Formats: sequence, C-alpha cells, structure tokens
Amino acid sequence: MRKLVLLTFFGLTLFNICIAQELKSPDGKFVMSFSLLENGTPSYTLAYKGKLVIKPSKLGLELKSGPKKPGMDKAEDMVQKSVNAKASLFDNFAIADTKTSSFDESWNPVWGEVKTIRNHYNEMAVTLDQKGNDRRMIIRFRLFDDGLGFRYEFPQQKNLIYFVIKEERTQFAMTGDHTAFWIPGDYDTQEYDYTESKLSEVRGLMAKAITSNASQTQFSPTGVQTSLMLKTADGIYINLHEAALINYSCMSLNLDDKNMIFESWLTPDANGDKGYMQAPCTSPWRTIMVSDDARDIIASKMTYNLNEPCKIKETGWIKPVKYVGVWWEMITGKSSWSYTNDFPSVKLGITDYSQAKPNGTHGANTAHVKELIDFAAANGFDAVLVEGWNTGWEDWFGNSKDYVFDFVTPYPDFHLLELRDYAKSKGVKIIMHHETSGSTRNYERHMDTAFKFMKENGYDAVKTGYVGNIIPRGEHHYSQFIINHYQYAVEKAAAYHIMLNAHEAVRPTGIARTWPNMIGNEAARGTEFQAFGGSKPNHVTILPFTRLLGGPMDYTPGVFEMDISKLNPGNKSHCNSTLANQLALYLTMYSPLQMAADLPENYTRFPDAFQFIKDVAVDWDDSKYIEAEPGRYITVARKAKGTGKWFLGSVNGETPRTSSIAFDFLEPGKTYIATIYGDGKDAHYKTNPQSYIIRKVAVTSKSKLSQFVAPGGGYAISFVEGDKSAVKGLKKL
Amino acid sequence: MRKLVLLTFFGLTLFNICIAQELKSPDGKFVMSFSLLENGTPSYTLAYKGKLVIKPSKLGLELKSGPKKPGMDKAEDMVQKSVNAKASLFDNFAIADTKTSSFDESWNPVWGEVKTIRNHYNEMAVTLDQKGNDRRMIIRFRLFDDGLGFRYEFPQQKNLIYFVIKEERTQFAMTGDHTAFWIPGDYDTQEYDYTESKLSEVRGLMAKAITSNASQTQFSPTGVQTSLMLKTADGIYINLHEAALINYSCMSLNLDDKNMIFESWLTPDANGDKGYMQAPCTSPWRTIMVSDDARDIIASKMTYNLNEPCKIKETGWIKPVKYVGVWWEMITGKSSWSYTNDFPSVKLGITDYSQAKPNGTHGANTAHVKELIDFAAANGFDAVLVEGWNTGWEDWFGNSKDYVFDFVTPYPDFHLLELRDYAKSKGVKIIMHHETSGSTRNYERHMDTAFKFMKENGYDAVKTGYVGNIIPRGEHHYSQFIINHYQYAVEKAAAYHIMLNAHEAVRPTGIARTWPNMIGNEAARGTEFQAFGGSKPNHVTILPFTRLLGGPMDYTPGVFEMDISKLNPGNKSHCNSTLANQLALYLTMYSPLQMAADLPENYTRFPDAFQFIKDVAVDWDDSKYIEAEPGRYITVARKAKGTGKWFLGSVNGETPRTSSIAFDFLEPGKTYIATIYGDGKDAHYKTNPQSYIIRKVAVTSKSKLSQFVAPGGGYAISFVEGDKSAVKGLKKL
Repeated sequence: MRKLVLLTFFGLTLFNICIAQELKSPDGKFVMSFSLLENGTPSYTLAYKGKLVIKPSKLGLELKSGPKKPGMDKAEDMVQKSVNAKASLFDNFAIADTKTSSFDESWNPVWGEVKTIRNHYNEMAVTLDQKGNDRRMIIRFRLFDDGLGFRYEFPQQKNLIYFVIKEERTQFAMTGDHTAFWIPGDYDTQEYDYTESKLSEVRGLMAKAITSNASQTQFSPTGVQTSLMLKTADGIYINLHEAALINYSCMSLNLDDKNMIFESWLTPDANGDKGYMQAPCTSPWRTIMVSDDARDIIASKMTYNLNEPCKIKETGWIKPVKYVGVWWEMITGKSSWSYTNDFPSVKLGITDYSQAKPNGTHGANTAHVKELIDFAAANGFDAVLVEGWNTGWEDWFGNSKDYVFDFVTPYPDFHLLELRDYAKSKGVKIIMHHETSGSTRNYERHMDTAFKFMKENGYDAVKTGYVGNIIPRGEHHYSQFIINHYQYAVEKAAAYHIMLNAHEAVRPTGIARTWPNMIGNEAARGTEFQAFGGSKPNHVTILPFTRLLGGPMDYTPGVFEMDISKLNPGNKSHCNSTLANQLALYLTMYSPLQMAADLPENYTRFPDAFQFIKDVAVDWDDSKYIEAEPGRYITVARKAKGTGKWFLGSVNGETPRTSSIAFDFLEPGKTYIATIYGDGKDAHYKTNPQSYIIRKVAVTSKSKLSQFVAPGGGYAISFVEGDKSAVKGLKKL
Repeated sequence: MRKLVLLTFFGLTLFNICIAQELKSPDGKFVMSFSLLENGTPSYTLAYKGKLVIKPSKLGLELKSGPKKPGMDKAEDMVQKSVNAKASLFDNFAIADTKTSSFDESWNPVWGEVKTIRNHYNEMAVTLDQKGNDRRMIIRFRLFDDGLGFRYEFPQQKNLIYFVIKEERTQFAMTGDHTAFWIPGDYDTQEYDYTESKLSEVRGLMAKAITSNASQTQFSPTGVQTSLMLKTADGIYINLHEAALINYSCMSLNLDDKNMIFESWLTPDANGDKGYMQAPCTSPWRTIMVSDDARDIIASKMTYNLNEPCKIKETGWIKPVKYVGVWWEMITGKSSWSYTNDFPSVKLGITDYSQAKPNGTHGANTAHVKELIDFAAANGFDAVLVEGWNTGWEDWFGNSKDYVFDFVTPYPDFHLLELRDYAKSKGVKIIMHHETSGSTRNYERHMDTAFKFMKENGYDAVKTGYVGNIIPRGEHHYSQFIINHYQYAVEKAAAYHIMLNAHEAVRPTGIARTWPNMIGNEAARGTEFQAFGGSKPNHVTILPFTRLLGGPMDYTPGVFEMDISKLNPGNKSHCNSTLANQLALYLTMYSPLQMAADLPENYTRFPDAFQFIKDVAVDWDDSKYIEAEPGRYITVARKAKGTGKWFLGSVNGETPRTSSIAFDFLEPGKTYIATIYGDGKDAHYKTNPQSYIIRKVAVTSKSKLSQFVAPGGGYAISFVEGDKSAVKGLKKL
C-alpha cells in the first residue's frame, strides 16, 4: 500500500511541470504544450480537438564523451574540448528565449498529386541554455493543421562545436495500447510485410514479423520503423515519422511496452556511434500527423513542407515516366541477370566474357530489349528499364565484394549503340541500371564516369540498387555515413540532369521537394516480393499510410499473371492481388514513376484491362481521397495534369466489401464516359484473381457508385468527357 | 622428472617432420627447407652459411567462418559456401606438387641508387591440397643471394573462392634472444623512435616506447612493426618485412617472447576482420634478409625485385626533385597553416573567409611564397612545397571531420594564378599539398577535380597527408580497405602524370618499382619530430635498415638551426643532430625527393655548408656502402646519374668515432677535389651542433680517409674531377 503511494508520488514529481508554453495550429484543432521538467528536461504534449494524443514526452540527446585525442595545436585543443563536454544534452536546461511566428505560402511541385501545395503553420522556437555547460540548443516546433513537426537545432557557440551522438532521446508517449501497423526495426532493410497489432503485442509478434533479407540487422524486440501508423481505440489516427533526413542517421523507434512510450533509436556506424555533428547544424524533423479521418493522413503534405524548397534551378528535364522493363522475368526466375554460368567468380577487367558460353537465359540481350522497345512504343510507354546489361552479375553479392560492377561495360550480347539508336528511332528512352551491391565506395569511384556514360548514350534516368551488406564494412544502409552517400548520389545526378530511383536505400523523408530529380525510391516491400513467396493482400492498403508519406515508391504494379509458376515452373509464388487491384494501384500508390511490371505476353492476353494502364496518367493537378482505412481500403480520384481527365482507383484488403462513393469531384454539369474496371463477383486474390468486369457508363458529378470489391481486390475508373453522341446508348449510373 | 620427459617428447612430435624439400640460393649461401608437420601444417626453416637463422616455423592462415547469408539465387548460394568452409588453412595439407625454377634478369629503375638492378633467385612453388576440404594453396618461395621471400597463392578453385582472413599465421622462429631495433606494433602510425633491446626486453620497454600521435592503436605488449631489424649474438643481421602490399592488410609481428617466435599480425577492419579475398589471389611477399655484413641489408634490392615491373608505359614525366618549402616554419610553430583565428570551426563553402581577419601568421601568403620561389631559383632547387594554401586549416583534425578540405580553394592571400606564372617565369615548380586528415572518402570524391586542377595550374607533384583517425570510421591507416585507397591514389595520380608523396600512409613495400610516380613516402618518424621534442640521435642510423628497405622516405633533412626556440621562442625542442650530420643525410637517407627543410635565413648564415646541399645530386648511377652498423653508423658513396661526380655521406650515433675509409670506389688514375664537410672536434648534437670544418683536398682511388665523427654527427664529401691547375696547391690526402 505504502509502495503504491510512493510510486504515485514519484510519478507526480517526475512530471511535475513548470510553466508550460502553448502553440496552436492555424485551425486551432491542435495544441502543443512545451515545458521543462523539474530537472530541466525539455518535455512536450500534443492535443487534438481537446484530447491528448501525445502524453508528456521528454526531448533531448545523449552525447558520447570521447577521450581527449592528443592535440598538435591550440585550435585542435579548443575544438576537442567540445567532444569531451558532459554527455547529457537532455537535462539541466533553462529557457533563454521563446519566439513564435506564423507562416503561410503555397508552392508548386515539379511533379505530384496536386498542382499547388500550401505550407501553413504556426511556429515556436524555444532557446534552451544548459546550466553549468554553457551550451545552447533550440527546439523548433511547427504546428500545421495536419500535425506537428519539431527538430533540434545547435547554433554556433563556444562549448558545443563538434559532438558525437550516443543516442537521441526523443519520446512519443502514447495515450493507450493503440493499434499499430508496424515493421521490425532494422538498420539495413524495410522490406517487411506489415503486422497489425496492439502495441502490447509487438514483442510477442516480432519473431514472426522478421522475414529474411539479403541484408538485415534488428536491434530490439520492440523496435519498429517509421513511418509508423497508429490508431487509437476512439478512432484517432496517428502517424510518426521524420522529414528532411540529411547527414544524420535514420531514426527507428523503440517501444517501452510497459508505459507505451516510443523513444527514438538512431542507426549506429561501424563504431556504434550514432551521429557526428558540427554546429551550426540541426536534426531532421520529427513528425506527428493526427486526424480522426484517415484520409487526412494520406493526403498530408507535411513531410514535404518540412523540407527545403527546390534547389534545382532549371527543372524542365525532370519528367514523370511510365515504363516497362527487362526485370519481372528475372525476378520470377524466368530469365537471368547473368550472361553465363561458366565462372565460379568474376574479376572485372580480368574475366574474359568474350570466350564465355552464354547461359541462354540472359534477359538483357539486344533482340529481347528491342522487343520491349517495340512494345513500349506501340503502347505509349516512355521508357524501358533494362537490368543485367552490364558485366558482373554472375557474382554480385553475398561476399562483400568491393569492385563488383563498373557501370559502363555491357555484356557481349547487349549492343549498346545499336539499342541506343533503335530506342531513339522509336521515341523510347532506356532506363539505366546501377546495382551497387552495397559497395558504396566503388560506386562513388565510378559515379562521374557512369553518369557521363549515360548522357553520352541517351539515358536520362537511372535505377540504383543497394542489395547486400554495405561497404565500408560495419556501416549500415541507414547509418549517417551512408545516408550521406545517397544524398551525394542524388545531388551528383542532378548536376548531370539525371533522374534517380534508388532501391534498398533509406526510405524517403520528403527530400524530393528539394531534389525533384529523385523521382522514385523502393525502401519498402515492393511487387518483387509477390514473386518471392507473396505479400499480404492488404499490404497496399497500408503503404500509403507509411512508406508513401515520405515520397513516391517505385512499387512496380501491373501484374496480370498471378500464378508465377506460369512464368517459371520452379517458382511456386502467388501474387496476392486481383487483376483489378493491380490496375487500381496506379492511382492508390502515387508515383511519377510507374511501371507496367508484367511481361508483354501477359498484357496481350488481356488487352481490355491493359487499356487502363495505357490510358492512366502519371502526373496530376488534383487528388481527392474518397475512402481510406489502413489495412482495409483506400479509394482516390485524381485529375490528370493538363488534360482535365479524371482517374480513380480503389484497393481492398482481405474482406470483400461494397464501395459506395459519389462522383462529386467531377466538374458539375459535364457528362463523362466512365470505364469501370472491377472485380468479378467470384474474384479472389488467391483463388480467382483474373476475374474482372469492365463496363462503360455515363456519369456526372451527381452520380453515385456502389461497387463490389473482392478480397485483395479493387477497381479502377477512367473518366473521359463525352458529348451527346459519345454518351448515346450508354447506361447511366 | 617424468613431466620433463613428457614435454620433450611433445616437443619432438610437434616438429616431427616428414621429408623436407630444399631450395638453395644462387650463390649457395642460403638453404630454405620446406616440410609438412605430422598434422599437415606447412613449415620452413632458413639456414645461412650452414647456420640456422629461422628455426622450424609454421605457415598458413586462419579463416573466418561467416554465417550463411540469406541467398537469392543459386550462384549466391554456391559462392557463399566458400565463406562457410572450415576455418583452418594451416593444417591437414598434403603436398600435391613441387616446382622449382631459376630466374635471372636485370632491370633499370626510373630513379634509384643504382642504374641497373639484378633480379636473381631460385624458386620453389609448393602446391598443397587440404584433405577433406578439397582446397588448394600454393606457397611460393624465392631465395635470393640476399635472402628469402615467400607468399601464399590461392588459385582458382571450386571450394575456396571468397574467404575472409581471421588471421595470417606465418611464423618467423628466432634462434635466440636477438637484439632488435623495433617500434611498437600499431594500426595507425609508424612515427615512433626505435628502441634497441633484446627480444626478451620488448615487453618491459613497450610502455616507454609508445609516444603519443594524432592517431594510434596498439594491439599487443609484444607487438612490433616491420621492417624489423635484428642482430644475433654471433653477428648475423636479419631483417623481416613484406613486399608488394597490394589489396591486403598491413602485417605487423607479434612476439612469443617465451619461445622467441614472431607471428604475423594483420591490421583489422572496422569489424575486426583482417582481409577479404577472392581467388585467384595472393598474399604479399614475406621477406627475410640475412647477412653477416650489415651493408648487404641496406644495399639489398630484394623488396623491389619481389614487386611487379613498371606498369607506367611512358615515364619521362617522372623526375627526381630537390625542393624547399613553406613548411618547417609551421612545423616549428613560427607561422601557421591557418589564415585566421576568427572561426571556432569551419564549414567549407559556408564559412566566409573574405570577411575574416587574417591572423598575421599565415605562411602560405603570396609574398612569402615568392620569396621561396626566388630562393629556390637562386640556389638551383627544382621546386617549392607550399602547405596551408587552401581553406580549412583553422579546423582540420581531431574531430573526425568528413568534409574537411576541397583541395582546390586557395586562401584569400594565396594568389594561385599570380604564383603559377611567377614560378613558371623562374623555372621553379610548386609542389601541391593535399592534406586529407584521414578522410579518405572525401579525398576520393574530390580526387579527379583536384588532379585536374593541378595539371591546369602547373603542378606535377603532390604531397598527401593522412593526419588523424581514418574515415570511414573504424577503419585503420593500415587496414586492407585503406591500403586499397592509397593504391587507388597512386594509380589515379599516374593516370594524370602526377608524382605522389604520401605522408601518414602505410610504409612502402617496393611498390615504387611498379608505380615509380610514388617518389616519396613518410611512414616513419621524420625530421618534423625534431621540432616536436626531438628524436634519438641515432635514429638516422636505423631508418636505412628498416623503413628505407621498402622505398624512399621524404625525411626532409637540412636543418642548420638546431635550437628550435630561435625560430619560435615557444618551442623548446632541439634537433638532435650536428650540422654535418644533416648534410650527410642527403646520401645516407636515399630518396629521389630531397628537401632542404630549414628556413632560407638559416642557410644564408652558413653559405659554405649550404653549398653541399646545392651541389648534391638526387639520382644515381651507383652506390657503395662503405660502413654500416644499425644504431651506430652508416657511410655510403654514390655516383651521380650522368655526371660521374661522386658524393659521400656518413652519419653517426651517440658515440664519437673515427671513420677510416678508402676511396677505392673512385675511378683509378683520376684526381678529384674532395670537399669534406665534417664535424668540429668540439661538435656535439646537443651542446655544439653547428661546429663544423670544411676542407678541400686532392684525392685518388688510392686515398684513405680518417675522419672524426661527433656524437650525433657525420660528414659529407663532394668529389669533383680536377685537372692539374685545379688541384694545384691542394693538400693531398
């Protein structure tokens, strides 16, 4: 009994709060409250519509106190002191100053879901002085109508210049045992299926949630990654993520599942250190999106707004791309990246391919690439991705191979110039592929040459890959040193006017606002896993709530043949999706880079359904989220850039349903021909994925639709304005 | 009693040897014997003139058995197996084949001590098959008249493709408690004074031997570095080192001081692994030089002979260089590398130098560099090294700073183009300086731009530096990954026709035969330490027996003012050398790159002595080692390339002595004017270093010299052919 009292008492003192300072969102729905705890620890809370969504949560960082390195001159001694300063940057603070301000501007993205994005927030910058250490830190809060962003800032000062982060100690204290859509915390991959569970169940489900990957490093039985989607018992949606991850290590979250408090967990370097900082500098933004309407979360542009404006002056060369590729055939095992089976291992420049016996399965051969170019040209695709065109694929990962690819030497059966000219004559671009195998030094050594090579041979976009463990050895895919590498590649590519689509790199955090040549990223479990054993049917109803909040994903939809053994008898995988669901993905998985992943022969089998992929736009003037529930369904309508045509897509999870929506997004008074690509009544992602019904109807902004959606199903609609004659004879909806 | 018997019995079985295979040196003085121990462990011995110098010593490597990484394709699984193979590559071997051969050729180095080098050896290649594992390893021995070289070779095979070295297990079993000239084993620096001691005393003297450095990592209380110089009680000189260190980690030696057995100890990477290998590949050569005449050790060209022939086709652009520099003044603290004291820290491209207040001590200012150019031109120097010319020196090391220098941005007071044109008008080159601060990724990112910048601005040589801890963090100055970086820089420089002189890089291993643009290296305790507290007076009598065996050192001799406080009252260091000793170094410390380190004003004070530095050559047709004893003295005569002029240098340790030598190296029948620069009778490195006597005498090949040499002293001689009139009146020797 006494014990209980003591605990309560302790609990009280712990959060015995000094005068709190409040910040309201422009619409007044959010209130952020900042205060210092008795020991001078910064703390904040966040309330939405009068309800607390983030309980008192501590802020700060723990620094590493390095041993004094032998100095050679005064300057060195001076800066060294900072490294030896006290480790705590999380207590003993006093508020030196508080500045509040408002900001409201609109900007037009180079590509995107909408033509114009409003960046509207109220800001509070709290300047904190640490007693004793004479060190200063600013915590800057930006409160939007869709949520909160805050970051740490370290201004120029005498006693905090260079410092090493041991751990960031940012808390996100939950108000209860919420439902979470999570993937295991990992330093090297995000390619996991999402688990939906109560926070209290994370620990118990962790082992099952961890599936194997070419490179992976977990750190905690309750560690999860951001963007993390949550839902409270009373129907509030919360999303935790970060924005503007630049020259800092990637943040995961570690859950204290007794108190339901998430705390930041940074990715370490080879020495276990988590960040090398030099003031003046800042952390990335930590973001908390909140709404009682799930649609607000996926419509939010907060992550972009927390990034810097575009740094590329002339952006005319950056164009959305719809493409096909020599890719799915390798992913399914039907063909190979490699050219020969002769070599136990390969040494670039030494291994003689000219004498090697072709294995007969090499996908990127001249004749086949020409077929893809023809197919792209005939069906209005902009480009063809060709993987496995360059030497080295016989021996490319799993052995920490340093000099693994040179990025400029084609296989004997890939006739570079012939294909360059052929593609040009057909008005089709070839997309370059730079697989680095995680060997980042090797890639940087070849980057300039490789980018020059691209421009000389007519390539203006590159897909990069980081499969396998990172070199330098001991670094991770998400450690600061490698985050710096990805950024280096983005900016170097921009200098060459090259569009970049990085796979296995860190998940995006809105940086595409600043560097719009970053037209795609993987950084999540994409369609390829449908050929590696399959993904959960509701996977695509979660990604827009998590991975997509930071930027577009090169998800590669458009699989029409779900039985992978039809492509490769040795591969028993099944694509857990209906054909109609695959069509809807072109809308629900927003990206300026969209692939039609399947083989041409599979599209030829379903010309009526393929028509939608040919028609659908990849850049937009407007987007309307009509239905959304994480793990269940998403329905979105988008207005194509320039043309005024509307397209709609809806994806569904495991449970069959009827989607009842209104077309009030259409222009009043106009009549449209709506072509609806829906699931057949008997459609099912597993048993009958290719059952679909296409119907043409006449609709207006007053029309309503009631549409059946199968398990793992979906539907897609294209809207074209129709005059009387065109609409004549069409059933009205 | 029984115990003793058992031990002896065990001792016997341990080295119970199967049939030995013998290899003789061309002159028959050496016999190497190879055999397999009972457990199939390779073993060798080395005898010199009938005496064993290396007792039975084991050979082999221990591999790391990595965990199976999740595979994505068959090829991956296949190669992965090799990583999982048994860890032992040191036992269970059977001899599959033994090939012997002889080799004898001569080659002409681009620069060097002699015009022609003979490469003459008998070779034995033993092919070993490992039972059970079906793995193959070749040990190749090359026995020269000056010693043994051997290496491990891993041919292309099925079961040993990729492998990770946990440790190399090469033994060098000593025959007794020899005297060693050693420096502490370290992964990051060789900048130590040598300790002379019995092997049994190493452990006790280690702590004292470790002096502080900007980056250092010791690994064992009995760890020492190579090249290691040894002397046996019966007067045999032994040197242990390595040759052709390429894409492998640097070898140190760990002493088992109970049994007096040295074993190889490789430098680990950030993960503690010691080498990533892909067959076909080889280890560097392990070398054992032996002689009963110390002169043979320093005259040996074995290390070069074990390297590949020159890979640079056209070498006309590679020229020996005698230079002065804006350097000693910073080392002594008289002036500074930095331009201003305004900044607590620097961010390149952001910190605004144009507004900064100059500190008034910046050495590399236009006016001062012009003075150096004038001095160089007036005194026949080829070049001027200028350090501290580029922005960033206010904040350059000790903080693991990634973007530390850009290598192309001069300080406001260094007028690049003006100096380029001025130097050109005076026929003098400026030597570029690239301090990397150990940030190797940053250097590689800027290397192409920096080398182009050099060529555009008339620079054809660069001094690089690696002060401070290595980035990527966790790597070491001597780990495989960074060895690879140094080699990358050498080959990249060669592509730009740039001569390279790397400081704080790994000690050379004869690679300059293959890449003669590597005209210098530091990689030992150089003259700078005379301004950092001083070095042992006999240091220069040891370096030619150790550091110099792998290649030339940019030792930077020529200090005339030994009292450093005369340059900088705040620096109480003393240069432990007489002035005559400093002159002799131009001969005894062979290098195609020789500096006159001191300030012009100090040379102006001693014009007669300075004359020798002006006269002495830097490239040679022939060299004769006349006297040599490690730690005591070295005397060498060299014949200048082309001119036929002879020069002689002699350095001494602590003990004063009389050097009695014959001039029989001179051309018979000719008379020479010999200018002898010797120590004054009262000269002493500490108390009276500037006491010297210069005398001119007439000499022939029959002449003999008896010359006093002071503690830490030396003498230098220049020989010029003289006709009767010239010789007239000159005292004959």
